[in-house]
Amino acid sequence: MSTIRTNARVLYEFTAEAGNNELSVKEGETLTVTNKVKIALNPTWVTYSTMSVFVLFVACVFSKVKTFFYHLQASNGNDPWSTWNSNNNWPSNPEGTQTGKSAADPWNSQMQAHPQAYQGPGKNMTSLNMFSMSRFPGFSKPGPELFLLCKQLVKGKDKIPVYVSEVGPVWLYPESQLDCVVADPKKGSKMYGLKSYIEYQITPNTTNRPVNHRYKHFDWLYERLLDKFGSAIPIPSLPDKQVTGRFEEEFIKMRMERLQGWMIRMCRHPVISCSDVFQLFLTYKDEKDWKMGKRKAEKDETVGVMIFTTIEPEAPDLDLLEVEQKCEQFSRFTKAMDDGVKEILTVGHEHWKRCTGPLPKEYQRIGKAFQNLSSVFTSSGYQGEATLTDALTEAGKTYEEIARMFAEQPKKDLHFLMENNNEYKGLLGCFPDTIGVHKAAIEKVKEGDKLVAASKITSQEKGAMAKRVSTMSYALQAEMNHFHSNRIYDYNRVMQLYLEEQVKFYETIAAKLRQAHSQFTTM
Amino acid sequence: MSTIRTNARVLYEFTAEAGNNELSVKEGETLTVTNKVKIALNPTWVTYSTMSVFVLFVACVFSKVKTFFYHLQASNGNDPWSTWNSNNNWPSNPEGTQTGKSAADPWNSQMQAHPQAYQGPGKNMTSLNMFSMSRFPGFSKPGPELFLLCKQLVKGKDKIPVYVSEVGPVWLYPESQLDCVVADPKKGSKMYGLKSYIEYQITPNTTNRPVNHRYKHFDWLYERLLDKFGSAIPIPSLPDKQVTGRFEEEFIKMRMERLQGWMIRMCRHPVISCSDVFQLFLTYKDEKDWKMGKRKAEKDETVGVMIFTTIEPEAPDLDLLEVEQKCEQFSRFTKAMDDGVKEILTVGHEHWKRCTGPLPKEYQRIGKAFQNLSSVFTSSGYQGEATLTDALTEAGKTYEEIARMFAEQPKKDLHFLMENNNEYKGLLGCFPDTIGVHKAAIEKVKEGDKLVAASKITSQEKGAMAKRVSTMSYALQAEMNHFHSNRIYDYNRVMQLYLEEQVKFYETIAAKLRQAHSQFTTM
Repeated sequence: MSTIRTNARVLYEFTAEAGNNELSVKEGETLTVTNKVKIALNPTWVTYSTMSVFVLFVACVFSKVKTFFYHLQASNGNDPWSTWNSNNNWPSNPEGTQTGKSAADPWNSQMQAHPQAYQGPGKNMTSLNMFSMSRFPGFSKPGPELFLLCKQLVKGKDKIPVYVSEVGPVWLYPESQLDCVVADPKKGSKMYGLKSYIEYQITPNTTNRPVNHRYKHFDWLYERLLDKFGSAIPIPSLPDKQVTGRFEEEFIKMRMERLQGWMIRMCRHPVISCSDVFQLFLTYKDEKDWKMGKRKAEKDETVGVMIFTTIEPEAPDLDLLEVEQKCEQFSRFTKAMDDGVKEILTVGHEHWKRCTGPLPKEYQRIGKAFQNLSSVFTSSGYQGEATLTDALTEAGKTYEEIARMFAEQPKKDLHFLMENNNEYKGLLGCFPDTIGVHKAAIEKVKEGDKLVAASKITSQEKGAMAKRVSTMSYALQAEMNHFHSNRIYDYNRVMQLYLEEQVKFYETIAAKLRQAHSQFTTM
Repeated sequence: MSTIRTNARVLYEFTAEAGNNELSVKEGETLTVTNKVKIALNPTWVTYSTMSVFVLFVACVFSKVKTFFYHLQASNGNDPWSTWNSNNNWPSNPEGTQTGKSAADPWNSQMQAHPQAYQGPGKNMTSLNMFSMSRFPGFSKPGPELFLLCKQLVKGKDKIPVYVSEVGPVWLYPESQLDCVVADPKKGSKMYGLKSYIEYQITPNTTNRPVNHRYKHFDWLYERLLDKFGSAIPIPSLPDKQVTGRFEEEFIKMRMERLQGWMIRMCRHPVISCSDVFQLFLTYKDEKDWKMGKRKAEKDETVGVMIFTTIEPEAPDLDLLEVEQKCEQFSRFTKAMDDGVKEILTVGHEHWKRCTGPLPKEYQRIGKAFQNLSSVFTSSGYQGEATLTDALTEAGKTYEEIARMFAEQPKKDLHFLMENNNEYKGLLGCFPDTIGVHKAAIEKVKEGDKLVAASKITSQEKGAMAKRVSTMSYALQAEMNHFHSNRIYDYNRVMQLYLEEQVKFYETIAAKLRQAHSQFTTM
């Protein structure tokens, strides 16, 4: 393996943390890097510059297919959101083919209906996806035409129906909802202990029989789901891969919590939860079963835009204008919600920092000041002031307790609000691609007359395209309605939890202060 | 009148505020000043350097006796404590004779029993006091010798007795406590409206008949009390004189509140409240009565250390060792309490700034973020999410309310804690002088044998001195016990008030959040 040497100039300072395998760099320094190394900066870092939170992603792309992400992050105490804004803005981009796009706001590129939108979930098409692409020699990159002009639709049990309910088109929901518990992370090892990893136990409510999976299995599942459903259903990214500190308890706990959140979201989805690949992941019987299932899933041909061949709306076709209006509406809404969610994350992050930083320090100083005054008073030599000095000491200790309460509170409430919004941020980040596929299809159908005139398609094919874009629209509407109903539930739930904990917090402070108050007397 | 020009080099930067008649200066700049101008910086400014609160006192001493204080203060919003640490560290020093001392910590100079301590309350001896000084040609500045060696003690009704109670020596407390209300500030004018001033109405509980006084009358009373009692009783300074913005409502209200506090403290003092000059101030019948009383008070000869001639302890003489130990104990205690009080003021000042600055801003941003998300949700076009969006909007508004509550809270609780500690800081700042008189007297008595040997005093006089220092000690102990009992009452009261308001504050927040919580539903 030959070594490539490149010089890179450092654009932003980064201070390494001891023991994290990180490198401190100063602005303007030149680094010599071996192999192909991409150094980029989170586009939203500017918001955080005053907080001295600098996040660098160094993606080292080695020869062959193998890809590693080095996620160097500046640790910020217990605040897991110090790197939030970076986590999901960076689509996994192992081939580095879309550097220009990935550095920009994914919403902007989507809004302009740029050529890459024709790639459908192009950037998600990893090298593993080359199988499916190679089977369609007419399309170097699969666009919506693949579906709009395809001859045969899927029949039988693989059909995904769309019904029309009072809220509009909806997926078919299973009678009982699939659920699973991710728990019991265990350290395992391979190659005589040379390689170690964490294995999680996943127990679905259907079989109640636990299966074990490593993070890389989750990642495999994610890739399969993205491949298969990504054009119709936004598949949220998994929690970040992380190279350093992988075995720290805190990290494992957080990753498990997020994998649990991801799994619940997948279980809740009527289409995903019923899919063979998802069922395999949750219920494989043994290693052989798993291996066979894996091979079968990787050979699945109904991927990319071809998923729409399985969708069967039980409703009359929609006209193009309506299809377009719906698509525009979803595009506007998801963009607006993405902004709203990011605002909450930014504000929440700052609140987290204040609650764990300056506020406890201040309440502690207040507490210390009261206690110091109490000590001074004790030294007065004057009789009968024990009541006052005891009360002052207690008041001081109460403020020290309040300091601790402030520092601990975000973990109890803000944490869940942040996790929920972070999950939605991830989910919303998938919409530009999903919506992009639809916009590209709409544009194609609009070109119908021109294509017929140019004899590129027959007028029969033009009619079929209009019908198929209607199918796509039903799928998108069903998905949006699924999203809305989940969103309403999730935000109600997380706000309830947040406010409940906030009420408890302020009530506990009030009770503690009431107790401290009762010690003083002016009798 | 000739003009004196002096060059002064600026030691600390000061940024002027528009309209306040201030001058921006930079470190190292040279200023040419006419007349005698003293520019000094609060020795405790270092604590505030990070807050960018710079306070400069420019005392311009004009020819003749007339003295003006230009108190240039950097305004800091509604926080009246931005200049606290400066207000009382600067003893009024109209003659500018003790520049070296006044720039240093008054406690340090006292601790060293420096020669100036012999001046007794020397720095308080203004030019108005020259009358009394001129009558003792043997002493260029009156020290404790004046009392230690004086021939005759006061007799009759002017006697101030000291009793011994279970807590030790105490003043004689009147049966009913004097009290007064300072209210109804009115703008008055003189010289056909050319000169305007504020007149306050003071109503004592004894006559229930209001009298009117301007600030300068309070100042006159303060000077009289300081003159007469300052060696035995610490007389706290009046609230600051202020040249700019004298007629602003906020300033008048604050000054009135502080004048009220000062008057209550004087009323509560058994010796001061019974004095002729204090009674005159509260109960003069008409202008003529006031003028006559004024003249009489200004002619009072029992001033400075001579106040001790009126004190009559009803207890056996104390030996010098005990006198000295008590004095040392009071010195240590008042110094320690001064530190404790200043710590509370510093911490409280920072807390005030946080509660009125960054905290409300943050809660407002949280509130806005919730409301923005609610607007986005409203635009979804999805049916039946009004419950969520209404709840989110209400939660957002609740956090905006919490923001306002945080900003308003310090005025309701911290304000009184600060006022109380500020009052005590002022009071404690008087102790070094009062204790200094005692230390000087003790030193004098210790020199007794030497003075007898040198034939400077007779051995009879030496005996009288020992007796008189015992009298002084009884007075000091009575005063300390008065101070302790007031202190215990005041701190109990202010802590009760503070904690009560804090409890209300947190309970109100909890109730508001509980209401917001009830709007969310996961049914």
